[in-house]
Amino acid sequence: MKKVAVLGCGRIGSAIAADLSKNYSVTVIDINKSSLEKLSSQNIKTITADFTDKNKLKEILSGDIDLVVSAVPSSLGFETVKNIISLKKNLVDISFFNEDAFLLDELAKQNDVTAVVDCGVAPGLSNIILGYHNARMKVEKFECFVGGLPFVKDYPFEYKAPFSPADVIEEYTRPARIVENGRTVIKQALSEPELIDFQNAGLLEAFNTDGLRSLLKTMKIPFMKEKTLRYPGHIDKIKILREAGFFSNDEIEFNGFKIKPIDFTSKILFPLWQLKPGDREFTVLKILIEGIEKGKTKIYNYYLYDEFDEETQTTSMARTTGYTCSAVADLILNNKFGRKGIIPPEFVGENEKCFNDIVQYLKQRNISIK
Amino acid sequence: MKKVAVLGCGRIGSAIAADLSKNYSVTVIDINKSSLEKLSSQNIKTITADFTDKNKLKEILSGDIDLVVSAVPSSLGFETVKNIISLKKNLVDISFFNEDAFLLDELAKQNDVTAVVDCGVAPGLSNIILGYHNARMKVEKFECFVGGLPFVKDYPFEYKAPFSPADVIEEYTRPARIVENGRTVIKQALSEPELIDFQNAGLLEAFNTDGLRSLLKTMKIPFMKEKTLRYPGHIDKIKILREAGFFSNDEIEFNGFKIKPIDFTSKILFPLWQLKPGDREFTVLKILIEGIEKGKTKIYNYYLYDEFDEETQTTSMARTTGYTCSAVADLILNNKFGRKGIIPPEFVGENEKCFNDIVQYLKQRNISIK
Repeated sequence: MKKVAVLGCGRIGSAIAADLSKNYSVTVIDINKSSLEKLSSQNIKTITADFTDKNKLKEILSGDIDLVVSAVPSSLGFETVKNIISLKKNLVDISFFNEDAFLLDELAKQNDVTAVVDCGVAPGLSNIILGYHNARMKVEKFECFVGGLPFVKDYPFEYKAPFSPADVIEEYTRPARIVENGRTVIKQALSEPELIDFQNAGLLEAFNTDGLRSLLKTMKIPFMKEKTLRYPGHIDKIKILREAGFFSNDEIEFNGFKIKPIDFTSKILFPLWQLKPGDREFTVLKILIEGIEKGKTKIYNYYLYDEFDEETQTTSMARTTGYTCSAVADLILNNKFGRKGIIPPEFVGENEKCFNDIVQYLKQRNISIK
Repeated sequence: MKKVAVLGCGRIGSAIAADLSKNYSVTVIDINKSSLEKLSSQNIKTITADFTDKNKLKEILSGDIDLVVSAVPSSLGFETVKNIISLKKNLVDISFFNEDAFLLDELAKQNDVTAVVDCGVAPGLSNIILGYHNARMKVEKFECFVGGLPFVKDYPFEYKAPFSPADVIEEYTRPARIVENGRTVIKQALSEPELIDFQNAGLLEAFNTDGLRSLLKTMKIPFMKEKTLRYPGHIDKIKILREAGFFSNDEIEFNGFKIKPIDFTSKILFPLWQLKPGDREFTVLKILIEGIEKGKTKIYNYYLYDEFDEETQTTSMARTTGYTCSAVADLILNNKFGRKGIIPPEFVGENEKCFNDIVQYLKQRNISIK
């Protein structure tokens, strides 16, 4: 039985660990003991440790670990991936760090490591699908709409974050890079709202976010955009906060000390946006790929709708993100994918067998892509 | 020439000082020297001093001051009025303090002092009008709508505070007391929004605020309500902040120290809401009084619309609030009103001669009540 280490025991890390433990020997590492205890009933080894300590990480991964899954907070993502590559271990990462992963490409190749990054639902599955078609047609347009939303709409924001609320605010403030006429253009986050009616999910509002990431480098497609989905009205409320200055990074004087409004605002919003155990949510992913295939205009529409799993109490965001990650981990562990270097998911999707296996893997877990 | 002392040299205090200086010898006292300097071109004496220091106040008011106008921040209002009464000086107050003014009634009577409180536009002029009619008919319904708004609507709040922004937030959070069927009922601030179209001002949104104040004690009227006016949409934005917790008084832990969200939020909102010199604004006051007069149902509708005065750069809020105050001061100084004790403005309005003089006084200053 091959051995997998999962770094980070958050909502998504623990879903990946539970999934991979069906076929592999899994060890989960986290500094937070109580998070690990939730896994105790399962056939999973746990280690309470600080994996940001490079020597500690070396000790944990030394020996016979075959693959590492990095499900760490985005702020720790880049360093963690770098450390794993240095230790010559294959890895799949879903931390969605801000730094440019390709800075580690040389190191990964030198160390003969397969390092798949951004391997969630979107980015992740969306890249895999685009990678598949891009290798088979001349793609002219790629549009991706994605959102994770609670069933219960609490006033005022009608939103719960299925991952870190800090990353959500980041999404609302970082300028969005979009491709138009073959050129990368910068749009304000939350801009260009459009209302779209989804099967099961109903009417949602899409807006620009900076989600194309690796595709901006790896693809030569004239039109590409990625938009995030929320219940209609949400972004107007967020814009009020943003324009009033609540998301500002400029310190303001307060009773003699200095505070960044964004830090204070996070303190207020995070408890409101915290998805609590048992809070039911769903994930929507809609992809449009348009282009020329075998001399003809062809349009591919993909639609994924997934709900909270009552039985295992697993969020749909953990399911769709985590199982895409474990699907790719499964490919690497079974020597079905072995390309070395930094691998964005579109490189995995290029391979027809890999693509089909991932779709099949997700289908077995009741995640169907139409 | 009689002598008047004005405590506080804010926007309204300085408008009152300028107005009274036409007929009286006026001295303005403020701790802030730069505020006083703005008055230097006028025939007004200024003293830089801390009037919260009781001995200092005694020194200033000793001798031949005939009347004191208290235009201090609301937080200092009650103590200041108490100190002035102790020094046996007649006064008119527009600080709109939260404490119950009638607690000082005994003291004022003992000291043979006329102490008119809440003497602005609403409360103030609205009370004077109701007081006038209440003495002449059986009033069954009193409705008062009031607002001060900027001509330029800045996103997101479309609002500038013509007085202290802290008092505005107070208005948005303090439960509103309304009279229905002869009983005082408590409604949430910002509740029961209604859209009303005003001449000159256009469509505005009215919502419950706690503005009846002394009328809750002095009047036996089955239905009374006071609502504040803003541009439509404003209160929805404020509700988002309130419901998200940005106005909370419960301290939250922040980097080891404790902060009340309301205090930090004020830091962010105040610069946005600060009316800057030259910012043009207007004031709207609409009053409905319904009841039985001489055996017949009678309805009185009053409407006041006033704009920023370009010539003297005086805000309409300072004009309508300040000139109501100086009109009443003028009555007292001319021995036209001499009732002793704590005097809410409705007591002044009861007197027909006083009522007509006030209306005339305002008309001379281009404030006409239709």
